[in-house]
Amino acid sequence: MPILKLFELAGSDPNRKFSPFAWRTRMALAHKKLAFESIPWRFLDKDAISASGQTKVPVLVDGNQWIFDSWKIANYLEDLYPNTPSLFGGNSARGLSVFYNHLADGIVSQIFSFVADDIPNILEEKDREYFVRTREEFLGQSLTEFASNKAARLPKFRENLNLLRKTLTNQEYLAGNSPLYPDYAIFGAFQWARSVSTFVLLEKNDPINTWLDRLLNMYEEEINKSPRFY
Amino acid sequence: MPILKLFELAGSDPNRKFSPFAWRTRMALAHKKLAFESIPWRFLDKDAISASGQTKVPVLVDGNQWIFDSWKIANYLEDLYPNTPSLFGGNSARGLSVFYNHLADGIVSQIFSFVADDIPNILEEKDREYFVRTREEFLGQSLTEFASNKAARLPKFRENLNLLRKTLTNQEYLAGNSPLYPDYAIFGAFQWARSVSTFVLLEKNDPINTWLDRLLNMYEEEINKSPRFY
Repeated sequence: MPILKLFELAGSDPNRKFSPFAWRTRMALAHKKLAFESIPWRFLDKDAISASGQTKVPVLVDGNQWIFDSWKIANYLEDLYPNTPSLFGGNSARGLSVFYNHLADGIVSQIFSFVADDIPNILEEKDREYFVRTREEFLGQSLTEFASNKAARLPKFRENLNLLRKTLTNQEYLAGNSPLYPDYAIFGAFQWARSVSTFVLLEKNDPINTWLDRLLNMYEEEINKSPRFY
Repeated sequence: MPILKLFELAGSDPNRKFSPFAWRTRMALAHKKLAFESIPWRFLDKDAISASGQTKVPVLVDGNQWIFDSWKIANYLEDLYPNTPSLFGGNSARGLSVFYNHLADGIVSQIFSFVADDIPNILEEKDREYFVRTREEFLGQSLTEFASNKAARLPKFRENLNLLRKTLTNQEYLAGNSPLYPDYAIFGAFQWARSVSTFVLLEKNDPINTWLDRLLNMYEEEINKSPRFY
């Protein structure tokens, strides 16, 4: 069996993995106990992943197979490595995971407005210029403007997480007694946030925070390989 | 095996079942192909369900067992009738269904502000006075005020359903290729709406509407027993 390779977005510190989507894959691989070689990737390293036919990470390389994006990688791992712990817990749960995947994407979008102005600080210089220019073009405003008024916007952000909070008040993981891909997908959003910014999104005693800590303890070794701010 | 009995909220037409929560149970029973006797219940029939120890429906009676609320009933049916079609599709999917159940509750809350002023019209006279008085006390305003400006609020309501819409654009049911309890929980909210009000919440070609029609076709006989406005 060839060693899996994972291209993951990294900061100026190559150990700082900070893509919310690559975190989904990293956790999925950890869940399935699949060893992999992590390849730090920067925004401008388009050539390194050109065999995948596109320009974004995470990209998984399995022998001569190049797989992207995070959702496709999760399904690939589940189907191609059926003798490792199930990432979805059956076909019904896999179906129900699709909504959670979109939910995680939505949380990423919301979090971006709280951490966007901090991201340049953790990037290599070349990437920094690229990141700031492309994002500001997309947003039509500066990252500083986009990420202003954080404290005022925070209560609404927290309120938007109420259903998640309610769920995690009564059970340990989104999937029940043990975590599955939906847990990792949403974990990725918050792990990204604390990998790029000191801005604390959740109250300490928030059940969502307790759940993040639970995942952190369960995957301590894997998660601690990448620096984070809190 | 004693016949299951289900107390369901009914309008002046005893066939009009309109509780969003009782619809979850009705669909769960249909899914599990469990025959049941439906007992029309009105808000003031507190005595009829006093053996359940509380004052709300749905209440399921199975022999000498009285079970409420809709989530507990779903779990009861799944555990006590394991040889009927699974309502959750396994323990992982059951865990993942909790969030959907909260999501359905949230949609019910949102829909209430669009249909609240129409509900009195479908109620028996005694229930009507009770419903209007208790709800207006709770809301601190008249049902008419509470449900005003529907057209102006509708785009935001529809936007709030974007993740659901995105999911149902790419798969037939929330659970994938066939429906499970999360589908029924959210179905219940919309079925309630069209059982009490002529106000149309979704655009005709909305993927959520297509999904509702799919469920309607699948459970046509059961659903058509209760009148609806559209």
